[in-house]
Amino acid sequence: MTIAADMLTLAREAKKASRVVATLSSQVKDDLLRHMAADLEKATEALLAANERDIVAAHDKRMAAPLIDRLLLDDKRIAAMAEALREVAALPDPVGEITGMWRRPNGLQVGRMRIPLGVIGIIYESRPNVTADAAGLCLKSGNAVILRGGSESLHSNAAIGKLLKGSLEAMGLPSAALQVLATPDRQAMLELLKLEDEIDLIIPRGGEGLIRFVSENSRIPVIKHYKGVCHVFIDADADFEMAERICLNAKVQRPGVCNAMETLLIHKDIAEIFVPRIAGALRQKGVEVRGCPVTREFAPGVEPASEDDWGAEYLELILAVRVVDDLDEAIAHIQQYGSLHTEAIVTRDYASAQRFVREVNSSTVLVNASTRFADGNQLGLGAEIGISTTKLHSFGPMGLEDLTTRKFIVFGEGQIRQ
Amino acid sequence: MTIAADMLTLAREAKKASRVVATLSSQVKDDLLRHMAADLEKATEALLAANERDIVAAHDKRMAAPLIDRLLLDDKRIAAMAEALREVAALPDPVGEITGMWRRPNGLQVGRMRIPLGVIGIIYESRPNVTADAAGLCLKSGNAVILRGGSESLHSNAAIGKLLKGSLEAMGLPSAALQVLATPDRQAMLELLKLEDEIDLIIPRGGEGLIRFVSENSRIPVIKHYKGVCHVFIDADADFEMAERICLNAKVQRPGVCNAMETLLIHKDIAEIFVPRIAGALRQKGVEVRGCPVTREFAPGVEPASEDDWGAEYLELILAVRVVDDLDEAIAHIQQYGSLHTEAIVTRDYASAQRFVREVNSSTVLVNASTRFADGNQLGLGAEIGISTTKLHSFGPMGLEDLTTRKFIVFGEGQIRQ
Repeated sequence: MTIAADMLTLAREAKKASRVVATLSSQVKDDLLRHMAADLEKATEALLAANERDIVAAHDKRMAAPLIDRLLLDDKRIAAMAEALREVAALPDPVGEITGMWRRPNGLQVGRMRIPLGVIGIIYESRPNVTADAAGLCLKSGNAVILRGGSESLHSNAAIGKLLKGSLEAMGLPSAALQVLATPDRQAMLELLKLEDEIDLIIPRGGEGLIRFVSENSRIPVIKHYKGVCHVFIDADADFEMAERICLNAKVQRPGVCNAMETLLIHKDIAEIFVPRIAGALRQKGVEVRGCPVTREFAPGVEPASEDDWGAEYLELILAVRVVDDLDEAIAHIQQYGSLHTEAIVTRDYASAQRFVREVNSSTVLVNASTRFADGNQLGLGAEIGISTTKLHSFGPMGLEDLTTRKFIVFGEGQIRQ
Repeated sequence: MTIAADMLTLAREAKKASRVVATLSSQVKDDLLRHMAADLEKATEALLAANERDIVAAHDKRMAAPLIDRLLLDDKRIAAMAEALREVAALPDPVGEITGMWRRPNGLQVGRMRIPLGVIGIIYESRPNVTADAAGLCLKSGNAVILRGGSESLHSNAAIGKLLKGSLEAMGLPSAALQVLATPDRQAMLELLKLEDEIDLIIPRGGEGLIRFVSENSRIPVIKHYKGVCHVFIDADADFEMAERICLNAKVQRPGVCNAMETLLIHKDIAEIFVPRIAGALRQKGVEVRGCPVTREFAPGVEPASEDDWGAEYLELILAVRVVDDLDEAIAHIQQYGSLHTEAIVTRDYASAQRFVREVNSSTVLVNASTRFADGNQLGLGAEIGISTTKLHSFGPMGLEDLTTRKFIVFGEGQIRQ
């Protein structure tokens, strides 16, 4: 009962503050972000001390080494957090942009203007840098933000949050525009997810379990990022050197991320030559290849792929390979097993490229480029708040613009409806 | 159990068909809509017979006369349904539009292309014309559609749905792209609302009760249209003649709709002259005025407004009137009691107009024009599928474009990520 009341108070304060943040000029918001960056750097020692408490607790809980590494802050990572805030400050402000304006037959001038969403809740796991990143993106786009990090980074998040609230206060801005839930209590999160009148959007960032939990328990709209089962299709007409380069980059450069390739589809007309070539190149890089029967015929030693391999998000050096009859079968495979994240075609054929771009409705579709480009920074959005694999509001990498909506603005000279 | 299985089958068939509809050319889609229009006109007699069954049932249930009128089909209304389909056919096709394209430093060409959402569920009450309207808008924007009308129009909806499915078949298109739930069973709707893997969006059209029920029970994103508590603010600098004209139009021209004015705010500097003038004009049109103490001081005979009057959606000839100190108080009143639907200012003052447009973040904000223009047709979107008063995905009147999303398209020459 008291938790519910606390959450309601916190969310109402955020909503009130959101109205102030919504009307700030770009200049004030950019000053704020640069102020926050400087405050983070100045407080490095205090942040490291808070982080140390999380690290000790993680060791006590015998957390796995890679997870502890994700939690860890050091001088360099704090400097990177500050730098990220300065980069967001340098991006164009989406608020107030008029995306179109037209005149109606009765003389009314009608346009659409970008405005902030209001209050955004970010629910995330482990990495403490998300606290600063998400705060910067939400405030720059004129929104208030409620941050709920994982219990394992509780002290780090609380320290970063307190510091950034201080930056708001120092500039005479309402610190309630940035709320950090400094409790590991799941009940508090559940209460928050009910407050559809106060909070406009929830963005969960973390594993599929967290995202499903949040979306099943939320009355507030949730932008989901499920998994990335990314495909590359090598067309009959592909340049083999380019195909190999793209496949290796898509699979090997950073296998643990959502835009890495998980399944390679190869046109049957080139299977005899390209399958052994790419299987050899992948194995040289330490990739375990699991193939369909045709793949295995042309590349002996490849493990058989089971039905579960199609659609698997390995996030490690394993790749499923399938030889397909043609572009139609490649597209059908992607529709059946894909996750709507990112798919690429490698081809020299104009018609294949056009059809792939038109007919594959994943959030990012590439011709002759690595799937690894499916990222807000790489695509030119500036910083990224997440990648949506559901179609409502945003689809694909999300930048500042995705934290806004548009209202209709109408300028008249006394017109009335007939 | 069998209902759940039936709904899953129906939704899966719709999803499969949606892939076909998504790739149709504008020409084929427009032909389809014109074909549907002609089929409706040809089947007028059969449709009237089906509608007669609903009307008889409504009389048996002693339904109120205005509700029975909403149910009723006649030659003219069927012709209007057909005409609406032809108008949608004539609108530009949003699918395939590239809304922007830019080049990255590494030479990648990145753009965003509009694509259909996939499968859209429309849940609506009474008016059978929604069956044809919604089908036309969803199909034109490349989506499959599942229609679930009210139990009171069951036979009319089923007849219209069957006919339009026939139009799809006659053109060699999958009739599963248009599904009509011909059951009044609420359980079927509840099962449908769980199918987040098959259905991309739910749009409820009807009373607030229906909308709340749908949004509380849906795992699929819902676009909500709650109520329209629209305000008009008469600034100190307003042209009185224009102010009177706009107020009368906003309140009286069609009081039962969501973009009608419900509260009038008047600047205190003009209260002495404008309050009696507008109160008299409104009363002449049969409007009951409920006012704040200052309003009542200047317009004797006005009923006192209670706290419940602020924020009330009357939908009839009643108006709440409040005198405010200035623009700030007007904006604060709108923030506290408004519904984010539509607000207008009447002023000759440049700064007031600018501030109102910038600071009032309702879905439609007008200067010197009637709130009654907050409508997809009036604003130039062509036909309207609904009006969203929540900010995600769409805010305000929704046209064809709002039934699409955007994917990133990337054209490379072999680029890989460094």
